[in-house]
Amino acid sequence: MATKKKRTKKGISELRQDLVSGDWVVIATGRARKPHAFVGKPAAFGQPVSNCPFENPFSVKEPPLLRYDYEKQDKKEGWAVAVVPNQFPAFTRGECGEFYENGPYKWTEGVGLHELFITRGHKKYIQDLSLFEITTLVKAYKERYHAIVKEGCVKYISIFHNHGKEAGASIAHPHSQLIALPVLPPDVYKSLKGSEKYFEKNGRCVHCDIVAHEVKAKKRIIYENKKFIAFAPFVSRIAFEVRIFPKSHQSSFDMMEDKDFQYFAEALQTIIAKLHKGLNDPAFNFFIHTAPIKNSYHQYHWHVEVIPKTAVWAGFEMGTGIEISTIMPEDAAKFLKKIKIK
Amino acid sequence: MATKKKRTKKGISELRQDLVSGDWVVIATGRARKPHAFVGKPAAFGQPVSNCPFENPFSVKEPPLLRYDYEKQDKKEGWAVAVVPNQFPAFTRGECGEFYENGPYKWTEGVGLHELFITRGHKKYIQDLSLFEITTLVKAYKERYHAIVKEGCVKYISIFHNHGKEAGASIAHPHSQLIALPVLPPDVYKSLKGSEKYFEKNGRCVHCDIVAHEVKAKKRIIYENKKFIAFAPFVSRIAFEVRIFPKSHQSSFDMMEDKDFQYFAEALQTIIAKLHKGLNDPAFNFFIHTAPIKNSYHQYHWHVEVIPKTAVWAGFEMGTGIEISTIMPEDAAKFLKKIKIK
Repeated sequence: MATKKKRTKKGISELRQDLVSGDWVVIATGRARKPHAFVGKPAAFGQPVSNCPFENPFSVKEPPLLRYDYEKQDKKEGWAVAVVPNQFPAFTRGECGEFYENGPYKWTEGVGLHELFITRGHKKYIQDLSLFEITTLVKAYKERYHAIVKEGCVKYISIFHNHGKEAGASIAHPHSQLIALPVLPPDVYKSLKGSEKYFEKNGRCVHCDIVAHEVKAKKRIIYENKKFIAFAPFVSRIAFEVRIFPKSHQSSFDMMEDKDFQYFAEALQTIIAKLHKGLNDPAFNFFIHTAPIKNSYHQYHWHVEVIPKTAVWAGFEMGTGIEISTIMPEDAAKFLKKIKIK
Repeated sequence: MATKKKRTKKGISELRQDLVSGDWVVIATGRARKPHAFVGKPAAFGQPVSNCPFENPFSVKEPPLLRYDYEKQDKKEGWAVAVVPNQFPAFTRGECGEFYENGPYKWTEGVGLHELFITRGHKKYIQDLSLFEITTLVKAYKERYHAIVKEGCVKYISIFHNHGKEAGASIAHPHSQLIALPVLPPDVYKSLKGSEKYFEKNGRCVHCDIVAHEVKAKKRIIYENKKFIAFAPFVSRIAFEVRIFPKSHQSSFDMMEDKDFQYFAEALQTIIAKLHKGLNDPAFNFFIHTAPIKNSYHQYHWHVEVIPKTAVWAGFEMGTGIEISTIMPEDAAKFLKKIKIK
C-alpha cells in the first residue's frame, strides 16, 4: 500500500512509475547534474543548399500531397509548407496487408504511408519560423492526419520530427515526418490500455487528472496558453523531457479544431525555442501520441512528447526498458521556465 | 488468419512480430544497405591510463566484492577480474523500499545494487581477452548473480556491457555492470508473460521452439558450440543484432553450470570479435535477459542480446516502440558467419 512521503534522502535515486503505461524511470539524484552541465555542442549540421532535395520539394516525380503558400501580408512569395511522399519510404502504399507465417514467426508487408512535411528555408528551424509558418505546419499535420485516418488499412498514424544527427536526422533541411502503420504500435497500445483501465476505475481521463495535478502542484509547469499546457513529466524518461497537452479533453489529434492551431503552434515553438536557447541547440525528437481513431479510446488524451538527446540509452535501458534521467524533472522545469525567448 | 508466404516483393518493407513480446520491428528492405555500408569509425576511445580508476580497482574505500587472480600457468600475476561497487551508483543499498504516493503518482526509493566487473588491461577489450580471462568474467557474472538473487528486495538483476561512447560508455577501460532492481522491469515482464502464454497454449518453451526452428532454417545462425547457439533474430531490432541462447532449456541465468562457463564465454567472445572485425569496432551493448528467480517463470529461457549501434533510434522509434532495421537479418547473419576471427 502506497503512503505519502515528500522526498527521498539526498543522493538516493527515485524510481517513478508512469501511471498510464506502468513503466518505471529512474531519477538518479546521486548522479544528478546542474542544468548547465547539459549544455553541449549545437546539433544543427551543415549540408550544401545546392544539393538539398528539400529546396524545391516539387521536383520529385509525384505531385505534392499538400502545398501552402505565403499570404499577401507575409512579404514573401511562393510555398511556405509542402507535404510530399518520402522517396525512401519505410512504408509504402499498397493493398491491405495479409499476415503471413514463416515457421513460428508472423509478419506482414510494410503497407502504409511515409510523408515529409517541409518548411521553407534550408536553415530555418522550428524556433525561427514565423507564427504563420509554424501554424501552417501544424495545420498541415492535421490535414494529412485527417485525410489518412479514413484509409482502411491504417491502424495508427505517427507524426514526428528529428533534429540533429544524434536524434536520427539525415537531411539537414528542417522537416517533420508522418508514418501511417498497418498495426497498432505496442507502446501506444499499452498507454491506451492504461488510460482505459484508469477510466474504468476512476471514471475520469488519466491525463486530465495529471494536468489538473500539475496545475495545482505548479512545480513542473514550463509554459501554458489559453488552450495548451507544457510541463516536465513526473516520470521523465530523459533529462529535460517536456510533454504538451491540450487543456480540454481530446482523445485524438484529429479532434483539434482549426481555431486551436495557433495555440498549439505557439506551445510547440516555445518549448523548442526554450530548449534551443537553454541547452545550446540540443538534438531532439518530438512526436504525437494519440488515440488511433476519433471515437476509439475516448478516454485517451492526445499530446506531444519532446525528447532532447541529453543522454544515451545504453545496455541497462535496452535490457530493462527502464530509463535513467540525471536531473530532477522539477529542476529541469524551473530552468526551462526561466529561459526568455523573445 | 496467417498464411504462408516465402518473401515480400523487393523494396517493400517487412513488419515482423516478436512472438515472445508481441512487439513489431520493421525490416526496411526499400532502404536496405549492403553489410559494408555499416562499417564506421572505431568506437574505442582514449582516456589516459594514469587517471583510470579501473587500473587499481582496489583503491576505493570499500573492499572488492570479488577478486579473481591469474593462475600459475597464465604467465601473469595479480588480479584478472575484479568486481567492485559502483562509486556513482544509480541504485544504492538500503532497506526494502516502500511505495509512496505523490498526488496521482507512485514512486519508490532506488534501493538496489550497482556493481562493476573490471577486467585487467586498460585497452584489452572483450575480443582481446584470453580464454581464462573471458571465462573468469562469465564466472564472476554468475557468482554475483547467484549471491544477489537471494537478497529479499531484489526483483530483477540486469547484467550488461557498454562499449563506445555512442553506446553509453563513459569510462574507456573495459567493464561490465550489474544493477539489482526493486521492481520487475516492464520489458522483461512482457517477455515473461509472452513466454508463459506460449507455454500454456503449446506446452513448450517458446525460445526452445525458436532455437529448433533456427537450427532447421539454418539461414540466421552465426555461431554455435556444444552448449550455446548465436543467431540474428528474425525480428532484429537493429542491423546486426545477435542473440545467444543456451541450447538446453534453462529459465534463469542462475542455472548455468560451472562446466558451461567456457562455452558461454567462447560464444560471447566470438560474436563480439566478429562484430569488431566485420564492422570495424562498432559501439555496442549486450545484456542478459533472464527469468528473475530460479523457479519462477520456468518456461522462460535466458539469453544474451548483443546490440551494435548501427542506427539511431529517432522520433518514430520513440513514438511507437517499433524499430526500423535496414538490413535483412538473413544477410547480416551470412556476413557475420563468414568473418574469420582466428
